Amino acid sequence: MTEAAERKRGRGGGGAARRAARTAVSIDCAPVIQRGIPNMEMLSEEALEIIETNAETVLEEIGVNFVNNPAALERWREAGADVRGERVHIPRGLARKLCKTAPGSFTQLARNPERSVEIGGKGLVLAPVYGPPFVRDLDGGRRYATMEDFRKFVKLGYMSKWLHHSGGTVCEPTDVPVNKRHLDMLHAHMTLSDKPFMGSVTEPSRAEDCVEMCKILFGEEVATSQPVMTSLININSPLTFDDVMMGALEVYASNMQACIVSPFIVGGAMAPVSTVGTLTQVLAEVLAGVAYSQLIRPGAPVIFGAFVTSIDMNSGAPTFGTPEASQILYGAGQLARRLGLPFRSGGGLCGSKLPDAQAAYETSNTLNAALLGGVNFMLHACGWLEGGLVSSFEKFVLDADQLGVLHRLAAGVSHDEEAQAMDAIREVGPGGHYLGCGHTQRHFQSAFWRSDVLDNKPFETWSEEGARDSQQLASLRVQKLLDTYQQPAMAPEKAEELAAFVARRKAEMPDAFA
Amino acid sequence: MTEAAERKRGRGGGGAARRAARTAVSIDCAPVIQRGIPNMEMLSEEALEIIETNAETVLEEIGVNFVNNPAALERWREAGADVRGERVHIPRGLARKLCKTAPGSFTQLARNPERSVEIGGKGLVLAPVYGPPFVRDLDGGRRYATMEDFRKFVKLGYMSKWLHHSGGTVCEPTDVPVNKRHLDMLHAHMTLSDKPFMGSVTEPSRAEDCVEMCKILFGEEVATSQPVMTSLININSPLTFDDVMMGALEVYASNMQACIVSPFIVGGAMAPVSTVGTLTQVLAEVLAGVAYSQLIRPGAPVIFGAFVTSIDMNSGAPTFGTPEASQILYGAGQLARRLGLPFRSGGGLCGSKLPDAQAAYETSNTLNAALLGGVNFMLHACGWLEGGLVSSFEKFVLDADQLGVLHRLAAGVSHDEEAQAMDAIREVGPGGHYLGCGHTQRHFQSAFWRSDVLDNKPFETWSEEGARDSQQLASLRVQKLLDTYQQPAMAPEKAEELAAFVARRKAEMPDAFA
Repeated sequence: MTEAAERKRGRGGGGAARRAARTAVSIDCAPVIQRGIPNMEMLSEEALEIIETNAETVLEEIGVNFVNNPAALERWREAGADVRGERVHIPRGLARKLCKTAPGSFTQLARNPERSVEIGGKGLVLAPVYGPPFVRDLDGGRRYATMEDFRKFVKLGYMSKWLHHSGGTVCEPTDVPVNKRHLDMLHAHMTLSDKPFMGSVTEPSRAEDCVEMCKILFGEEVATSQPVMTSLININSPLTFDDVMMGALEVYASNMQACIVSPFIVGGAMAPVSTVGTLTQVLAEVLAGVAYSQLIRPGAPVIFGAFVTSIDMNSGAPTFGTPEASQILYGAGQLARRLGLPFRSGGGLCGSKLPDAQAAYETSNTLNAALLGGVNFMLHACGWLEGGLVSSFEKFVLDADQLGVLHRLAAGVSHDEEAQAMDAIREVGPGGHYLGCGHTQRHFQSAFWRSDVLDNKPFETWSEEGARDSQQLASLRVQKLLDTYQQPAMAPEKAEELAAFVARRKAEMPDAFA
Repeated sequence: MTEAAERKRGRGGGGAARRAARTAVSIDCAPVIQRGIPNMEMLSEEALEIIETNAETVLEEIGVNFVNNPAALERWREAGADVRGERVHIPRGLARKLCKTAPGSFTQLARNPERSVEIGGKGLVLAPVYGPPFVRDLDGGRRYATMEDFRKFVKLGYMSKWLHHSGGTVCEPTDVPVNKRHLDMLHAHMTLSDKPFMGSVTEPSRAEDCVEMCKILFGEEVATSQPVMTSLININSPLTFDDVMMGALEVYASNMQACIVSPFIVGGAMAPVSTVGTLTQVLAEVLAGVAYSQLIRPGAPVIFGAFVTSIDMNSGAPTFGTPEASQILYGAGQLARRLGLPFRSGGGLCGSKLPDAQAAYETSNTLNAALLGGVNFMLHACGWLEGGLVSSFEKFVLDADQLGVLHRLAAGVSHDEEAQAMDAIREVGPGGHYLGCGHTQRHFQSAFWRSDVLDNKPFETWSEEGARDSQQLASLRVQKLLDTYQQPAMAPEKAEELAAFVARRKAEMPDAFA
């Protein structure tokens, strides 16, 4: 039987009711993914042990630099490290021992308690793209991001069922002074969404502003003793911890706020051109960074991060969705689990300039590796384009839709009596078909994951509707989501207090644009 | 550091020489993938045992139909089955016992011995799209396929480094009478490529023609004792074996030619709407089909096939790259390994009408599952579009490029001293960079997989070059490959004999178009 003929067999029945159900505004949010499937253990035990041994050698022999940070050097000295200038040589075993006070998993609270997320274990929390200075959409093309764009992305994230987290710098609002952006950004996350969010890391004082705003939103006691932000602390690879990022980490860790300690590596430039060599450096860097967080405050929640791209050795451009990047992701996940820490990597990474086939191949390669590689916190899960230079509206909803695939795949396979479906096989028999049988009727609405944006209509229908490609379909969905967006409620006095804080802090500072 | 700044660090050096090397005609063909990584075992032991038990129940209680095939019924009766009418009830354990004579792996010979492929074990053989009546390209749009299209796809397959197999019906040449197509198709595979290929299954007499042509190409002794074709025998699910497909299987198995015994299932229509229920039926069907092949000739090579789509329960359209399809693929792979048979599934499957983001998301989801799920023979690895209704020229080269990702990922991770790169980490140290170091220089040309079609240039260069999307880039590559194609040599007397056979057989038959 051809697929065309098969399609006809499946048509009809209850279409109007289902269409009505689909047009209702949905602000459902799926629970955090809990894997019912094993992780993919790609590297051998032997390889992992070599990496762990070599990482200790790196820390002891070569050491790491803590730049412009005398207090950090003093903390390391007191902990038993051999500090020479800004170079910290960490005796074999010390960093790993210090990491032991970091929790294996933790809960980040959201202002809507139903949206709080557990990060670690078998879980996977999905957060949107972070950092791009540009945005792109079908109508407006590529342009510098504004605060209005930022707000739209927060709204889209709030409306995305498969996204658990509102993220942080979903794009850089370049129309707001650089020293005030963090206030508007955090305010947008706090008021336009009720999902958990990330804090600013671009200056320690901005991290402090974020803590202050969280005190308003969550109360002072909660905001200094329980994670209400998870923030991204990039390591300046190779082996360098700068004072800005460490300063932000110090603010957050001392308030029990979560940090992702994340080497940022373009392979072949900031790390060796081999998977095991790169993983060795990643592990050394994470060990040092996480250990340092525990010197600030034992028990502060941290995530083992790894952002590693491969590189086009011809042009020097970073490349994404490549086999080397996947191998490193899988290996880093194994190392994180052996260390007992939550793991951050992956996302909808791609190098393409457009939300086209290249973007989707690269994205899917990364999303699949992240799911199977045991990632617990996935930044850039949707909306990332052009190597992180661009936040794409269309790609945001396309990727967010694919996150539904991860949810279903992670759930694993039921084998209870109903799932065995022997009654259906008996009822239908050789040569029959299943569409009408009792088992199918009981399960057809939930049996298969369904895309909210991709087109599975017959060719003729699709042609009549304008032969739209994925980008065009996504553009329609962006508009629909923004049109139906409704702001989640917040107590008026809290909203006023937040707005007043932002206004006051902005008034206290002159504008700065660099 | 931003990605943009990072790109600059990587530029320069030896570009001209590398550009020259890239412009040479390449007819390299990568060896069959040998996995250096573990398979993903998604289903539990308990679930697999339940499926195996239930499949035996299906074969015994419900049975399978062998339609219009009295000889098959007689063979089953002699083997100990309970035959009632056309229904064959197979006693518990009998089918599995009969399967034991099928080899766990086998070599399919190509006329170029370097292109022969081992199918089974840890291997993965990649073959192109099979079956579409339409083709699509950027310039010509969607149209009925012709023999000229067919030849172009065979040439593209021959030119594709990551493709090991020339395939079979890469598109349906609708301009050739239906009863003569197989002759032109096989002739094209034999003469325009030197990779292994598939035989016709649309009539037993056409399978016989294919065997005759292989006797010319490989010699009579080889063509009747060693696999020189691997052909696709679809089971008419649920539980039905029609006389046309079984007739072709009988021809091939009796000549020791390989068959893929493959349930063809649109989930929810031809099988229950549950993963375990579908896998139960798949296993029952494969057990019956493979057992039957061994009744024809013990030791005949066969592959455990599973082509299972999910379904859009609203429109009845088959859907691809979905979590349910991946779960079934993973589970079927586990069942095939437990049965000790090579496994066929996966491919670049998608439902999209265009080679756009939808096509690529769905394709990558399937390709990744097929690699990690232990597939040994992947049909539809490249070129599949619109649910198999269309062979796409652009998607052929885009997918074929992604097959390179699978090769690299499957190779696993080296951890020898050179891969550990401790010399590089010591040489570069904190804050340095790796582009100039000795280790990078030794490895940069082979360290990272490189796409032959995707664009990783900086935004400005890409814009100046026309801001081309993946489809446009792929269109250029299709043209380049066809322009540089050179036919592999064949002894003139053999070429003449093949051409004469085709001409004679065509002259013996009236044209038929249905």
